[in-house]
Amino acid sequence: MSDVKDNSETVIVSRFDCSIDNLFLGVLCHAAFQDVNVMVIFGFGFLLAFLKRYGFSSTGFNLLIAALGVQWAVLVEGFLFHFSAGDMKISLHSILKAIISVTAVLISAGALLGKANPIQLIWMALVEVAAFSTSRWINVKFLKVEEHTSLMHVHIFGTYFGLAASWWLHRSSLSNRVEKEKSNPISDLFSMLGILFLWMFWPSFNSVLIMDVMQKRNAISNTYYAIAVSAVAAFALSALSSRNGKIRMVHIHHATLAGGVALGFSAPNIPCPWIAMILGLLASVISVLGSHCLQTYLNPVLKIHDSCGVHNTFGLPGLLGAIANVILFIIIKWASLSSLAYLALIEVASFSLTIAIGLGSGFITGQYGKALCKFFLIFSEHVLCDCITSAVTAVFPGLLPLLVPRYCA
Amino acid sequence: MSDVKDNSETVIVSRFDCSIDNLFLGVLCHAAFQDVNVMVIFGFGFLLAFLKRYGFSSTGFNLLIAALGVQWAVLVEGFLFHFSAGDMKISLHSILKAIISVTAVLISAGALLGKANPIQLIWMALVEVAAFSTSRWINVKFLKVEEHTSLMHVHIFGTYFGLAASWWLHRSSLSNRVEKEKSNPISDLFSMLGILFLWMFWPSFNSVLIMDVMQKRNAISNTYYAIAVSAVAAFALSALSSRNGKIRMVHIHHATLAGGVALGFSAPNIPCPWIAMILGLLASVISVLGSHCLQTYLNPVLKIHDSCGVHNTFGLPGLLGAIANVILFIIIKWASLSSLAYLALIEVASFSLTIAIGLGSGFITGQYGKALCKFFLIFSEHVLCDCITSAVTAVFPGLLPLLVPRYCA
Amino acid sequence: MSDVKDNSETVIVSRFDCSIDNLFLGVLCHAAFQDVNVMVIFGFGFLLAFLKRYGFSSTGFNLLIAALGVQWAVLVEGFLFHFSAGDMKISLHSILKAIISVTAVLISAGALLGKANPIQLIWMALVEVAAFSTSRWINVKFLKVEEHTSLMHVHIFGTYFGLAASWWLHRSSLSNRVEKEKSNPISDLFSMLGILFLWMFWPSFNSVLIMDVMQKRNAISNTYYAIAVSAVAAFALSALSSRNGKIRMVHIHHATLAGGVALGFSAPNIPCPWIAMILGLLASVISVLGSHCLQTYLNPVLKIHDSCGVHNTFGLPGLLGAIANVILFIIIKWASLSSLAYLALIEVASFSLTIAIGLGSGFITGQYGKALCKFFLIFSEHVLCDCITSAVTAVFPGLLPLLVPRYCA
Repeated sequence: MSDVKDNSETVIVSRFDCSIDNLFLGVLCHAAFQDVNVMVIFGFGFLLAFLKRYGFSSTGFNLLIAALGVQWAVLVEGFLFHFSAGDMKISLHSILKAIISVTAVLISAGALLGKANPIQLIWMALVEVAAFSTSRWINVKFLKVEEHTSLMHVHIFGTYFGLAASWWLHRSSLSNRVEKEKSNPISDLFSMLGILFLWMFWPSFNSVLIMDVMQKRNAISNTYYAIAVSAVAAFALSALSSRNGKIRMVHIHHATLAGGVALGFSAPNIPCPWIAMILGLLASVISVLGSHCLQTYLNPVLKIHDSCGVHNTFGLPGLLGAIANVILFIIIKWASLSSLAYLALIEVASFSLTIAIGLGSGFITGQYGKALCKFFLIFSEHVLCDCITSAVTAVFPGLLPLLVPRYCA
Repeated sequence: MSDVKDNSETVIVSRFDCSIDNLFLGVLCHAAFQDVNVMVIFGFGFLLAFLKRYGFSSTGFNLLIAALGVQWAVLVEGFLFHFSAGDMKISLHSILKAIISVTAVLISAGALLGKANPIQLIWMALVEVAAFSTSRWINVKFLKVEEHTSLMHVHIFGTYFGLAASWWLHRSSLSNRVEKEKSNPISDLFSMLGILFLWMFWPSFNSVLIMDVMQKRNAISNTYYAIAVSAVAAFALSALSSRNGKIRMVHIHHATLAGGVALGFSAPNIPCPWIAMILGLLASVISVLGSHCLQTYLNPVLKIHDSCGVHNTFGLPGLLGAIANVILFIIIKWASLSSLAYLALIEVASFSLTIAIGLGSGFITGQYGKALCKFFLIFSEHVLCDCITSAVTAVFPGLLPLLVPRYCA
Repeated sequence: MSDVKDNSETVIVSRFDCSIDNLFLGVLCHAAFQDVNVMVIFGFGFLLAFLKRYGFSSTGFNLLIAALGVQWAVLVEGFLFHFSAGDMKISLHSILKAIISVTAVLISAGALLGKANPIQLIWMALVEVAAFSTSRWINVKFLKVEEHTSLMHVHIFGTYFGLAASWWLHRSSLSNRVEKEKSNPISDLFSMLGILFLWMFWPSFNSVLIMDVMQKRNAISNTYYAIAVSAVAAFALSALSSRNGKIRMVHIHHATLAGGVALGFSAPNIPCPWIAMILGLLASVISVLGSHCLQTYLNPVLKIHDSCGVHNTFGLPGLLGAIANVILFIIIKWASLSSLAYLALIEVASFSLTIAIGLGSGFITGQYGKALCKFFLIFSEHVLCDCITSAVTAVFPGLLPLLVPRYCA
């Protein structure tokens, strides 16, 4: 049975056999692949399990949109990046990149938790993956951004997409309703589970796509230092910012991971740990400040409701990281003054473009998501009674799953 | 202190030093070993934690029978496969195979959850491991089945052993009692924990024993695609099959992992992802259909009670995988027509034999398990009062542990 | 952006490029690094989550003192071991050793759970890491103990440090208070989560620092066998020691991991599995006996309160392991009689010294910890009202975090 042709694996296999160095990377890649998989499926699922009412929703729907999103992302990425002469090359590396892309969807889902029904989440997953891949394609093809950097835009893209989509689902009664659906000690512990897994595996997330061994090592230890400072700072700031010195779970929830997010872009290029640690601290401060100030103003003024505070956890630290990356880039390249301003501008253009596409596509998705929901409600009433269609829909699980809305008000 | 002789490690160490290729496999093996260990100890333990009353029973007894079963499996496997001239060779690879063998016991324990006491579980573990190793030995020695394939029979063996043993422990009042012991949101979340860990590490489970690098890669990505489709289909089918479109935890519980089970045999040989995805979908459909139809008819007619629905999660998808493997085998080998029918027959004989041994040994185990329980009850009353015996029994932890029954009605 | 200098990574990177053997170790090291990281951050955090009131305290503060302790340990270790000509070399290997050192703090924190406030925990973390590194430095420099062995003293150091510090925080009303704060089924399941993760990854913990491939393999399988016997024995002894044969969670909690702790020193040097299994059994027996006898006498007589029974889980098995290591050392080196007595004495001196430093520094830490708490209470009242200081303190998260006490009575 060993004479099977493997069309799907030529890319990755041909990389394995060349030299010891690539062999090494291949093995490391497999272990890191698992780490990232654990982060996305388990970490994000339980990170958002802190609302006692939405425990199953967050972990279950997280699995649903991650599993669906990965398949869709492999297709879209394959079409945009690896399509040649009618043949699409799919490898294990494609799945890894698809998993990282799907992170954007999971972050957006955090902003919509408790507001969107499964159909809207699936609709969002399909559009967001396509939009993020397009944004990445523009970055890589036209702005000549490295692949690793372009994928690390996933945090800011996911956040702003989610916030824009959340604008459409905002209801005036929401803030009162959410007040009732607070967390309890057990749901906090489940959430802690997710936080810890994300915390532990973040160095793998920031280093998995880097091919150079030395840069990989730098990325791992820099991220570790940054996220360690972040965790300590989260506790310190939470105690300092409350009147009676009590540590608030929401601050731990937002600020612990901020250091890892902020290091996403620059982890492999930071020359010494101290810079990484200061970045981690700054990310944590921004995250707690955001949690204090923005959350109270953003919601009533802009009519945006951010269920899980993804703006504080991923958005602001991601922005800080992007800006820090540009500054670091200027400092490192200071000697070669000729094209410095131009290159720095490209970097700024790159993440600005990502935010713009995120906001734009999120806005459109939210708009059509609301209409879609109504359409499906009418559609499902006529279709679902018919027994034959159930067989048809089962054949296309990516096409029409979860026709009946669940939380749709 | 470095001049210690290592009798126990000659097999694996001699493999390490030959070439880069084996070195590579050795390293990959270690990481995958951990993955499978996590699946068996953690994943299975929490998968069955969904009944709120049996949370600790399922995780604690899972650890107990896994730890005992691995030691026993290493001994039995060593005796059957690696015994030569009075000397038994035990390596890290032996532990890995033992862990996979023990999966059969954990699946059977799922069918008996809440019905069997610790003594019966230990008795079952000892018999089942021996029976599965014997079945595997016949497969490998006489039917010339590959080692990887023979170990993947573990799902169907475990299921049918458990169902046969469950027949003896069936009580008429059981169905009413179980109605009371439903799951609650927190136990569902704990169960979700187990499902997610099994889901994430299933590609490692299906690929860990494959030595060829290219086939390993194929097995990993095929399993990943199949299990991703499975998860999406589980949610879709659950929503479609219920009247109000609500997603039922029991369907997610049964169907999410079906794709991974179905791919067990054929994962390394499937040439393109689409076949794997269709298999994953079919497995999911069969699992949900089984949950709907079989569960309601199997219980009252055949007097079998399947606490955790292992027949839907592992039995039916395992059977589908075995049949799909034969079909795939025929398609691939179509060119060499000469011995095709004979070889296909061998494949069919192989899994039929496994099911037959599973049913037979399970039936006998259940029969004696009931008698054993009564014997131990009488035995323990006379022995346990005696203080000296406690010291004796402590010396043989594998022999007489947990003498006093706990749930024995 | 690839022309960044990496001052911090020279040690580890220069090791990578020399040969295939080191390459192999490097890769294995990365996977094992993650395993140990998971154990320390996740395993210890949830191991101590079994008291229903202190669920968040144990996981949250565990993360806090682990993240802070690792940074501090890297500094202290770098200063003591890798300081030359004003330049300190920090590598990924330094972080690994720091994580293992921090285990001592987490064990001590287990003894103080529910009695110490965050400031006292941070104070303890800072002193304990410095004391353990000093103890290790004396062991390595003067007693010529191997680095791996010196780091495995972490269990006994942590236990006796914690017990000595606990003496100061003992209050007469404590035993009554604790009675009320029992565990419940859900907190037991969370604790089981931690136990399982520690159980699964203990072979990595015992083997991660060993460089020789053959010894590494021995360490992994010996630890696996020992901890498997330990788990089975824990269940058996728990059932035997209770009147009605019920399994008590506290025994599982204490004895399951005892085998792994006991194997810490001798895992790579044990020539056959049977010795490891007997050691695992003995460790489990000692742990359960300790839980029965010592716990009831230690508390009222010595006025020590051991919240999580760390003395039974880590202290006694650690002592057993240290003694077993000396005996094994004598048996192996029996042929070369000349300096045997001297070398054996060094081994005994080594762990006696560790215990002595642990008890001494723990006693002092506990004494000043109480005074420190009062000082900070006065200090924080004057400082915290001042808004400017919050900015200052945020810049030094390792210096003055969590000024306001929380549980301080």
